Amino acid sequence: MVERVAVIDMGSNSWRLVVFGYEPGTAWWSLVDEIREAVRIGAGMGERLGDPKRLLRPDRVQLALHTAAVFAAFCRATGVDQVEALATSAIRDAEDGDELLAEIERTTGLHARVISGEEEARYGWLAIANSTTIVDGFGLDIGGGSIQTLRLEGRRLAASRSLRLGAVRVSERFLPGERTTRKQMKALREHAAGELDGLGWWRGGDRLVGIGGTIRNLAAAAMKRLDVPDIDVQGFPLTRDALEELIDELAARPVSKRGQVKGIKYDRADVILGGALVLAAALEQGGFDSIEVAEAGLREGVFFERLLGEGGLFGDVRAESVRNLSHRFGHDDEHDMHVWTLSRSMFEGLAAAGLHEYGEEERELLWAACLLHDIGVAVNYDDHHRHSHYLTLNAGLPGFTPRELILIGLIARYHRKGAPDPSELGDLAEPGDKHRLQLLCGVIRLAEQLERSRDRAITDVRVSANGNTVSLAADCDPSRDATVPIWAARRNADLLGEALGREVAIDA
Amino acid sequence: MVERVAVIDMGSNSWRLVVFGYEPGTAWWSLVDEIREAVRIGAGMGERLGDPKRLLRPDRVQLALHTAAVFAAFCRATGVDQVEALATSAIRDAEDGDELLAEIERTTGLHARVISGEEEARYGWLAIANSTTIVDGFGLDIGGGSIQTLRLEGRRLAASRSLRLGAVRVSERFLPGERTTRKQMKALREHAAGELDGLGWWRGGDRLVGIGGTIRNLAAAAMKRLDVPDIDVQGFPLTRDALEELIDELAARPVSKRGQVKGIKYDRADVILGGALVLAAALEQGGFDSIEVAEAGLREGVFFERLLGEGGLFGDVRAESVRNLSHRFGHDDEHDMHVWTLSRSMFEGLAAAGLHEYGEEERELLWAACLLHDIGVAVNYDDHHRHSHYLTLNAGLPGFTPRELILIGLIARYHRKGAPDPSELGDLAEPGDKHRLQLLCGVIRLAEQLERSRDRAITDVRVSANGNTVSLAADCDPSRDATVPIWAARRNADLLGEALGREVAIDA
Repeated sequence: MVERVAVIDMGSNSWRLVVFGYEPGTAWWSLVDEIREAVRIGAGMGERLGDPKRLLRPDRVQLALHTAAVFAAFCRATGVDQVEALATSAIRDAEDGDELLAEIERTTGLHARVISGEEEARYGWLAIANSTTIVDGFGLDIGGGSIQTLRLEGRRLAASRSLRLGAVRVSERFLPGERTTRKQMKALREHAAGELDGLGWWRGGDRLVGIGGTIRNLAAAAMKRLDVPDIDVQGFPLTRDALEELIDELAARPVSKRGQVKGIKYDRADVILGGALVLAAALEQGGFDSIEVAEAGLREGVFFERLLGEGGLFGDVRAESVRNLSHRFGHDDEHDMHVWTLSRSMFEGLAAAGLHEYGEEERELLWAACLLHDIGVAVNYDDHHRHSHYLTLNAGLPGFTPRELILIGLIARYHRKGAPDPSELGDLAEPGDKHRLQLLCGVIRLAEQLERSRDRAITDVRVSANGNTVSLAADCDPSRDATVPIWAARRNADLLGEALGREVAIDA
Repeated sequence: MVERVAVIDMGSNSWRLVVFGYEPGTAWWSLVDEIREAVRIGAGMGERLGDPKRLLRPDRVQLALHTAAVFAAFCRATGVDQVEALATSAIRDAEDGDELLAEIERTTGLHARVISGEEEARYGWLAIANSTTIVDGFGLDIGGGSIQTLRLEGRRLAASRSLRLGAVRVSERFLPGERTTRKQMKALREHAAGELDGLGWWRGGDRLVGIGGTIRNLAAAAMKRLDVPDIDVQGFPLTRDALEELIDELAARPVSKRGQVKGIKYDRADVILGGALVLAAALEQGGFDSIEVAEAGLREGVFFERLLGEGGLFGDVRAESVRNLSHRFGHDDEHDMHVWTLSRSMFEGLAAAGLHEYGEEERELLWAACLLHDIGVAVNYDDHHRHSHYLTLNAGLPGFTPRELILIGLIARYHRKGAPDPSELGDLAEPGDKHRLQLLCGVIRLAEQLERSRDRAITDVRVSANGNTVSLAADCDPSRDATVPIWAARRNADLLGEALGREVAIDA
């Protein structure tokens, strides 16, 4: 039975209601619905930073009340009764923030609570630790009103601090007017650098993960400048160089034209430069070359806490991602696992025989592809390898980079028919990818055929090399019939043979 | 519980084992597995047409025995115990055909039966009547050894006849050698025309449906010459002109180079010209301008008889196709149906107000898109409109033409976000498609938003036109809250407004 929980995020820039579906007692979950409104409740507060009396703007309050009414009605109408509504920086800092939430509760019945910067950082940590493989490093969440800085040790949250450097806030204070000057930008960077320096621990230079709409949007814009398939930004490394290019491109235009910059979202266009400059300062100040982007954020953090219990983390983010996707479309787990068993035997046997030098990284990609190779059957048996590829790339695999995701998709794609084409990696290609794909696809293709009758008749494969021939000796379960696997494998050994530059012989 | 049935088709050209999964008592089914071998059991029989003693070639018999052993092992290993194995023309006509089947049964335990040309035609009819909308017309199945000609009346099989004009057979007899001459081609055409003329009823000139690998491959090759998305040939009309162009292209090459003709399958390349000439003669002789292609064939016919009982037909092929696909990925049937209820009210209300002149055809496309608009959520809620489009185009909808399939996919795609782009129709575009899509997408988009809270709060929509404004009055269930639907609809009325060239006002 699938249960649903709604998380309402009353951010300084946009308000969003998302609904997650999950199966209690399992790790299966997915986003099932979402509505949003650009409430911009933090508007007008930045200009009075330092002003002792910070009040929400009446026009924003009106829109906030209407939006809350819509969200509350949505929860009632769709029958979602687990609702978590949270307000962040703008409402937290406004003198009349509590008043707004009380008014919302009075008029709509929706109970929302203000979370502290510390809590906000904790949810950000849950999002980061559950959707990336970071163990030790840093996290950054750029919101509309504040940013949350995090330090992780052993996947746990070691330190955090909320700073009033959100994109709406700094844009209003430092970049007023239609055009932005170098001087304004410099002042903003310096201010941000100073705040970060004050933390005392914002330096390290190793791994940094970024969350929140501003960072996602900047990464998406940078990705659009590359030759890569149209996939989510999950795991994408946004480099300092790419960010500075974007900053130049944005700064060269008046505010009203920034929405035309490729990849920049229209309703963020007026505050994106401010956010980008804060991010640039954070990279520079901390000595980071790039920031890797996670799609999850505050809302997912809140949901993960429900799903996994307080402080709970997925045991292994990559493994959970792959299993989650396989579970959603899979129809024969035993077959998938056995294709992996045989693939692993061949991958390791070939390495032991000195026939390739790939290691743990390729092994894991192969494992993931084995679990996902048949998910496309859910679309259509015909061309199901192509559909497995589509589903993998479009459903996504948190924990993997775009390059890894594309590789997994390609290995699944070429588990049958055709020759793998590394050109799909585009700008993410690395030297040797053609051979890498040939070998991994050659292995999975043979494993699939050795398990063609889906009955685990072939229990293992032993690899040996003799001169120009590589022999694959298939061990057969004596109670089973090896006719189909041997027949099928012999007609599918070419790709592996090409990868190895040798004849591949299949022995029963 | 899903049951499985295997159908083994021992054709004159290829042998194929396909496994269908189905839920007994429902109409839900899909192809779940397939293996094939180019046995070419009919090889060498055509040259001795007229020879009183027709024997199967020993090398072909060897391959046939091995293939049968593989198929039998596959059924045992995968635990499919419902198996129907059928042999057609080549084995039917060979003097030692029964001997081969007896030997297969002795060595593999697989019981196969020879079906008569009449039975073969009956299965072809079941395939045609259950995967197209033909009521009265003709059918043609070009196999390796024989062709089956059919006449349908009121969806029933009114006449049929098997003729020894299969692609392998005629190629061997009329087109021997590496190069083909005009004279050889003329002789084949005349022979085929004479045989068809002998039927006495192969004329009519209205609707003709083609099945079998030869026709499918010719249609796929013709489709590849057009600017259309990469979808199956189901429902594609192969015109005489397009066929004659293909014939010219094939005949200009030696046999060994015909596999290089774009879209022609490599292992059919040596007999495809023979099949194409028989098809050309059939079109000419019957006075048909084109043949519309069905993906289903003999194997599906055998399966449909199991699924639907003897002589059983789907009540409405298009409706079953749409429901089948919606069922596979759908998660909220009530919501889908209500989006249709509201779409229909608007579509009909706008027509009654003289605001468009679309009719039954567009209404049906809109209905199909309503049932399919959310199937992409199975892939990912983000961009689910794009995934609905992918799933629709790649899972396919028997009964619809490629043009209709693409239109349904586009309407589902644009039920949210963006402006519909008719350029995807490519060469299948017709004048007015831009407006057609704008209107249909504008309607479904509003219906989706008026049912945004998924609780059927809006029960109906009444259309009225006043000067430059079209008013949509939403009737609200008094026990429900219309806040969400009205809020959502008002921000999504632009597309319909553009289609109508007027302001669209949503009144609660």
